[in-house]
Amino acid sequence: MIPRYSRPEMTEIWEPATKFRIWFEIEAHACDAMAELGVIPKENAAAVWKAQDVSFDVDRIDAIEAVTKHDVIAFLTHLAEIVGANEARFVHQGMTSSDVLDTTLNIQLCRAADILLADMDRLLAALKARALEHKDTVRIGRSHGIHAEPTTMGLTFARFYAEMDRNRNRLEKARWEVATGAISGAVGTFANIDPAVEEHVCAQLGLRPEPISTQVIPRDRHAMFFATLGVVASSIENIATEIRHMQRTEVLEAEEFFSAGQKGSSAMPHKRNPVLTENLTGLARLVRSAVVPALENVALWHERDISHSSVERGIGPDATIHLDFALTRLAGVVEKLVIYPETMLANMNKFRGLVMSQRVLLALTQAGVSREDSYRLVQRNAMKVWEEGKDFRTELLADAEVRAALSEDEINEKFDLGYHTKHVDTIFARVFGQPA
Amino acid sequence: MIPRYSRPEMTEIWEPATKFRIWFEIEAHACDAMAELGVIPKENAAAVWKAQDVSFDVDRIDAIEAVTKHDVIAFLTHLAEIVGANEARFVHQGMTSSDVLDTTLNIQLCRAADILLADMDRLLAALKARALEHKDTVRIGRSHGIHAEPTTMGLTFARFYAEMDRNRNRLEKARWEVATGAISGAVGTFANIDPAVEEHVCAQLGLRPEPISTQVIPRDRHAMFFATLGVVASSIENIATEIRHMQRTEVLEAEEFFSAGQKGSSAMPHKRNPVLTENLTGLARLVRSAVVPALENVALWHERDISHSSVERGIGPDATIHLDFALTRLAGVVEKLVIYPETMLANMNKFRGLVMSQRVLLALTQAGVSREDSYRLVQRNAMKVWEEGKDFRTELLADAEVRAALSEDEINEKFDLGYHTKHVDTIFARVFGQPA
Amino acid sequence: MIPRYSRPEMTEIWEPATKFRIWFEIEAHACDAMAELGVIPKENAAAVWKAQDVSFDVDRIDAIEAVTKHDVIAFLTHLAEIVGANEARFVHQGMTSSDVLDTTLNIQLCRAADILLADMDRLLAALKARALEHKDTVRIGRSHGIHAEPTTMGLTFARFYAEMDRNRNRLEKARWEVATGAISGAVGTFANIDPAVEEHVCAQLGLRPEPISTQVIPRDRHAMFFATLGVVASSIENIATEIRHMQRTEVLEAEEFFSAGQKGSSAMPHKRNPVLTENLTGLARLVRSAVVPALENVALWHERDISHSSVERGIGPDATIHLDFALTRLAGVVEKLVIYPETMLANMNKFRGLVMSQRVLLALTQAGVSREDSYRLVQRNAMKVWEEGKDFRTELLADAEVRAALSEDEINEKFDLGYHTKHVDTIFARVFGQPA
Amino acid sequence: MIPRYSRPEMTEIWEPATKFRIWFEIEAHACDAMAELGVIPKENAAAVWKAQDVSFDVDRIDAIEAVTKHDVIAFLTHLAEIVGANEARFVHQGMTSSDVLDTTLNIQLCRAADILLADMDRLLAALKARALEHKDTVRIGRSHGIHAEPTTMGLTFARFYAEMDRNRNRLEKARWEVATGAISGAVGTFANIDPAVEEHVCAQLGLRPEPISTQVIPRDRHAMFFATLGVVASSIENIATEIRHMQRTEVLEAEEFFSAGQKGSSAMPHKRNPVLTENLTGLARLVRSAVVPALENVALWHERDISHSSVERGIGPDATIHLDFALTRLAGVVEKLVIYPETMLANMNKFRGLVMSQRVLLALTQAGVSREDSYRLVQRNAMKVWEEGKDFRTELLADAEVRAALSEDEINEKFDLGYHTKHVDTIFARVFGQPA
Repeated sequence: MIPRYSRPEMTEIWEPATKFRIWFEIEAHACDAMAELGVIPKENAAAVWKAQDVSFDVDRIDAIEAVTKHDVIAFLTHLAEIVGANEARFVHQGMTSSDVLDTTLNIQLCRAADILLADMDRLLAALKARALEHKDTVRIGRSHGIHAEPTTMGLTFARFYAEMDRNRNRLEKARWEVATGAISGAVGTFANIDPAVEEHVCAQLGLRPEPISTQVIPRDRHAMFFATLGVVASSIENIATEIRHMQRTEVLEAEEFFSAGQKGSSAMPHKRNPVLTENLTGLARLVRSAVVPALENVALWHERDISHSSVERGIGPDATIHLDFALTRLAGVVEKLVIYPETMLANMNKFRGLVMSQRVLLALTQAGVSREDSYRLVQRNAMKVWEEGKDFRTELLADAEVRAALSEDEINEKFDLGYHTKHVDTIFARVFGQPA
Repeated sequence: MIPRYSRPEMTEIWEPATKFRIWFEIEAHACDAMAELGVIPKENAAAVWKAQDVSFDVDRIDAIEAVTKHDVIAFLTHLAEIVGANEARFVHQGMTSSDVLDTTLNIQLCRAADILLADMDRLLAALKARALEHKDTVRIGRSHGIHAEPTTMGLTFARFYAEMDRNRNRLEKARWEVATGAISGAVGTFANIDPAVEEHVCAQLGLRPEPISTQVIPRDRHAMFFATLGVVASSIENIATEIRHMQRTEVLEAEEFFSAGQKGSSAMPHKRNPVLTENLTGLARLVRSAVVPALENVALWHERDISHSSVERGIGPDATIHLDFALTRLAGVVEKLVIYPETMLANMNKFRGLVMSQRVLLALTQAGVSREDSYRLVQRNAMKVWEEGKDFRTELLADAEVRAALSEDEINEKFDLGYHTKHVDTIFARVFGQPA
Repeated sequence: MIPRYSRPEMTEIWEPATKFRIWFEIEAHACDAMAELGVIPKENAAAVWKAQDVSFDVDRIDAIEAVTKHDVIAFLTHLAEIVGANEARFVHQGMTSSDVLDTTLNIQLCRAADILLADMDRLLAALKARALEHKDTVRIGRSHGIHAEPTTMGLTFARFYAEMDRNRNRLEKARWEVATGAISGAVGTFANIDPAVEEHVCAQLGLRPEPISTQVIPRDRHAMFFATLGVVASSIENIATEIRHMQRTEVLEAEEFFSAGQKGSSAMPHKRNPVLTENLTGLARLVRSAVVPALENVALWHERDISHSSVERGIGPDATIHLDFALTRLAGVVEKLVIYPETMLANMNKFRGLVMSQRVLLALTQAGVSREDSYRLVQRNAMKVWEEGKDFRTELLADAEVRAALSEDEINEKFDLGYHTKHVDTIFARVFGQPA
Repeated sequence: MIPRYSRPEMTEIWEPATKFRIWFEIEAHACDAMAELGVIPKENAAAVWKAQDVSFDVDRIDAIEAVTKHDVIAFLTHLAEIVGANEARFVHQGMTSSDVLDTTLNIQLCRAADILLADMDRLLAALKARALEHKDTVRIGRSHGIHAEPTTMGLTFARFYAEMDRNRNRLEKARWEVATGAISGAVGTFANIDPAVEEHVCAQLGLRPEPISTQVIPRDRHAMFFATLGVVASSIENIATEIRHMQRTEVLEAEEFFSAGQKGSSAMPHKRNPVLTENLTGLARLVRSAVVPALENVALWHERDISHSSVERGIGPDATIHLDFALTRLAGVVEKLVIYPETMLANMNKFRGLVMSQRVLLALTQAGVSREDSYRLVQRNAMKVWEEGKDFRTELLADAEVRAALSEDEINEKFDLGYHTKHVDTIFARVFGQPA
């Protein structure tokens, strides 16, 4: 985890103190259930809750683990120091470390997902606000980086909204995938612990019981979770790339907000670089790098091995922390993006009407010219604009073969911008619901 | 695509003939919609359907493309050769190549998903049948490759069933992701084509209209699709790994079916190798290799670039064809897997009762021995079994400190196998629903 | 493998006929060595060479394999059909399938590498030619997509040359990695075959004997090979990205060659899209997708398993064929790239002198102004250019605080372009060696 | 970076204090070179060295960066606070942040590589020692997890030695790749800084000047570096997988060292799990996850963008720290691995002579039986061993068809173990050089 790209809210989920707190809750709820079943005395279950308001001593637990080389045993030893050895003697009975570790991991991932969902809400709100603000701000659409036909800045934000909204749905599904817990004992047979314990613990902690576990919760769930984060990260890269393009000197249709004290370059003081979106491009790569190891984690040996564990110690915090930071950063960029509608217009007019070529092509076809001939006629005039700097409309009006098919009025009508924006409301209604 | 790992049913989806057939249907339905709107004459729309029963000449289209360097124009030229240049002159009006290409890709992916879902149904049926067959076949559970506690072979199949069933749900969602079509024209503004055309074409072809497209259908959809295939592949690896372990000489609890004429090794005639599951392990890697490029495809420049296209020409067929083959192969392996219950019993007894150590540990704790002492007592006797080949039960019975806590009957009761299988029905009910 | 992105020269390496030809050569050379050692009769070794000029019947071999489910045995059966069962009876003696398969794979990879090296030579020649041609063509350098300071088009080509030259060296090393053969028999102990056979076969086929093999040649070699291809692919993406940027409408400093009959867009006839470099961007992703599975192939079980095989059937041909195509396509793009020096100049002057800001900053510092003050002075004037469209030199000349430190002549001198190109020859000498 | 999987020696390289120390050295050496060239006063260059023995105040620098949002400017401001604003005013003159950052990164990577090389030396020594120790310890070789023919434990270690030795060579090459520095100024033209400065700084810091840089050092170098780490990690997984297999209950030919206080399982006290090698398997996945983002980092926009930076802040420390830990852990595992030669013998004899089948096959062929018949004869007897628990030698001696070709003595001779180990010395000489 890179501290520079982290926010405390998310980082806290992955701190040892949080982990031990969750471990405690699992053990304490399990004791309650066992007491309810009559497997252990109720007073022992009640005694465990004495540790409820205690801050566990992370250093002490580490010290014990240095000897036992086993983290859960170290924690249980420390818990017994707090609760009392005799009172604590039924804690963890019939359970295995994985019951605690895997249920904890899933709780952490669910909490992380909740933050990410909230991040997305902020981002979605920003995208929607900018989309509505620039619904009719005309801008040239580009395919292959080449001017194509007019579109609007609002449509650009609207499509990012739609994409991120899909990601929100995906993330909800991904959260659902990992919202399970398992207290099924060694190799998952419940031989030493009643399934009712699992049910109680899961109910208390907002999880579903894992239908069938094998000491570990199956890792296809986590693979799906991290794969989904990888898709979200790729969408961030998509939006960031658009903004980087908009800010490049020759385009300059928008700029990341540039605060007063900020320095763009140690050598070139005038430069305002899209460093936030470049950074997001890199962060997307980092988050995506969690996907393949998560997929490799699915195939464990027999009822479990521990190869997945070190991977998850890395990608669990890293992918969620960096994605949280990236979503938040992107929301800020979108909220404060400085947009230049005049430059958009200027850019669109760079090639003197050429962007209207398809309309002319269609008009020729509809006027009875063959597809092949129409294409040839339009290309002939387009090339004069492209190569000789001529004006497209003027050339068309002067082309006898064109004029044989289209009148002056008909040609002029093809250069009306409103033609291209007439369905913007339709699209907005599709994306944001019916307009008020 | 590796022919050796393909099945014709899936391969056919990706053949040029299928592609051109879908292109034709999109264009023809689009003409119908345009005629309905009065944009083009109804007789022209009707004329296009003359090509309905024609097999398109793939070589001819390739020859035209060699000149135009544009595949859709090549197809349209050929279509005009069939339908008549005049009749065909409104075909593709207001549309772009991407309208056709992207809608086609999604249709192909949906059809591929349908086959994969059927594959999964066969695999699920096989897993369920073997699970029920071996519900009570006792087998040692292993964590870290080391004997842990007893489980049953049925539980192994049941967990694979549950995992693959999750994958089936994921794949349905992934299919839903890509079940969209777009006929929105250049840069997606519908400037030259009415949204009603898109709606009609999608309705005819079983797709939802893409709410907002930009000439291309957004690639986060496809990223999610291929990421899901990667998860499915990883589960295949998981199952394959289990079978490879079962077949290894020292374990030999099961073997892939070995047909009469088959040769295991050119040098060692007795060998029966788990080559099918080893192959599946490799195929899983291949399918997974589609995930990262699919994620990299999400960020396109502005309203579209074509960098995604070559990637999809590769991973589209490859990932679906190899996954189809792998699911089918795995279903066959599971259906015909030769299972050796006697070896399972023999393996379990290899360490003379040691697998019951946890039960003894629990019993000591419940008899009032401290956790630490219980652990020490059990480990002391366990080590004699492990290192000196003693019998665990005999050692426990002879250990005075143990006997101070547990009677002979109590110790003997700990070695009852039924203790470990008592919740198998509960788990089966969770996985397969309530028993009949 | 995608036929559209393949060249016959490379494809041929991976065809069954080539494979069987190499298998034959390995077996025949091995027989020679065994005969030389007196292990088999010389006449039997000689007899095998009867098949030297025979085209093996791929369909026949496939038919036999359909029964034996073992490809090498199928081939040997077919070979015996040609050579005579009695004459052929010592063929493959003491060897395993892997001896043949692995040595063959490495021969194929070496041949593939040779083609790739030749491709690189063509690309390097093109890059060098264009570098020399445009050594002094001034162009704005851009960091973050933002104008920074002047550079030259030749330096752009020169850095791509240097990068691709490094890749050439890497690929030579990668070829060396896989230029080994193994004829070491089951589990690699040479129990049934003398090491002298391996030495002879390798010498005849241009390989080094694998120092220690385990039936298979260790896969770290192949991991390194494919990882290197991934680096080369990434450099192709790097060059392709630069060209895509150069061609975008607002920049337009260069264009991919556009042949007469070619159509850029079915809807917009004027468009000339950088489709070749976009395609290369996608191909880079495809080639890179071979890296992870190649890394996953390294860990095999014990002396070998066959999980790597299906992976290599995919990535072996695919990665080399697509990379060959990509290198060749890129060479063509570079050779024929249409470059617009006038646009480069126009772009550079877009912000009226602002690119010289660093020189002014330095001059102020050297004239005794503090770093902080210098930065402030430059930024103050730069912002007027950026935001108000002023001319940078004019503003500086009018800024009293600046003029207190720098004279008119000193300011004017800062706008000399030669200042920026004065070390181009030095850099060219570093990259291409001393100038003639 | 996961603290649990880190060693202070490597972690220190990536700490802010180390980074600032290197930044200082670059700046100070650059000042020396500029003074030597007469570009700045010698006393200013000398003054900078006043900070030589100062510990830079990381918190102070962070505080400045919080305002300037630029790390190098923050450092330079702090340096001026130490050296004196007037004395420091020529520091960084003509340079860009990337000159400092990229040269620093490469120094860190070189230092990291040096540690990794030392780690490998320890691992190589351990592998060699264990190889020599168990050169003649006979063990069954396994292909597909199935018993094949005898080999020795020494050969297993020897092949891991050879593989890791190749990795050592690769890592040396990878280190060479990144052992460059660049002080070439904005967009890399040396416009504002003489190439002699770069040469001096690089010479002082053990680097080669980057022949052509573009403000940044080209990232194909780093891609190659991290790809190489990925290969090394995969070899670690390979060795770890072998040990995990050896330790599994049914095989038990070796065990990780198990210290006295260590607890294998919280529930099953007898268990000794191969947790270190399982952990290494996971760490290998983590290190490998750096490869793809490093490849994605190669394509930067124009003369540079900063998308690579966040990636490198992650993978730079993480991949080197975790690989260092993994190599060290693996060396410890190998050094202390508890090996059970008796179990190896027992395992080999599990199938009563079957592993000698190939020898018999060869003998039959050489005695004039056709290949096909020989295979049939051997398989017939092998199946009796496999399926009916018979002894292979006994069955062969009793098979009239076999005896027609081979005498009793000839058959008995085939069961001599020495036959399989006769070339071990040859292989050892290949791997370790000629024996003393």
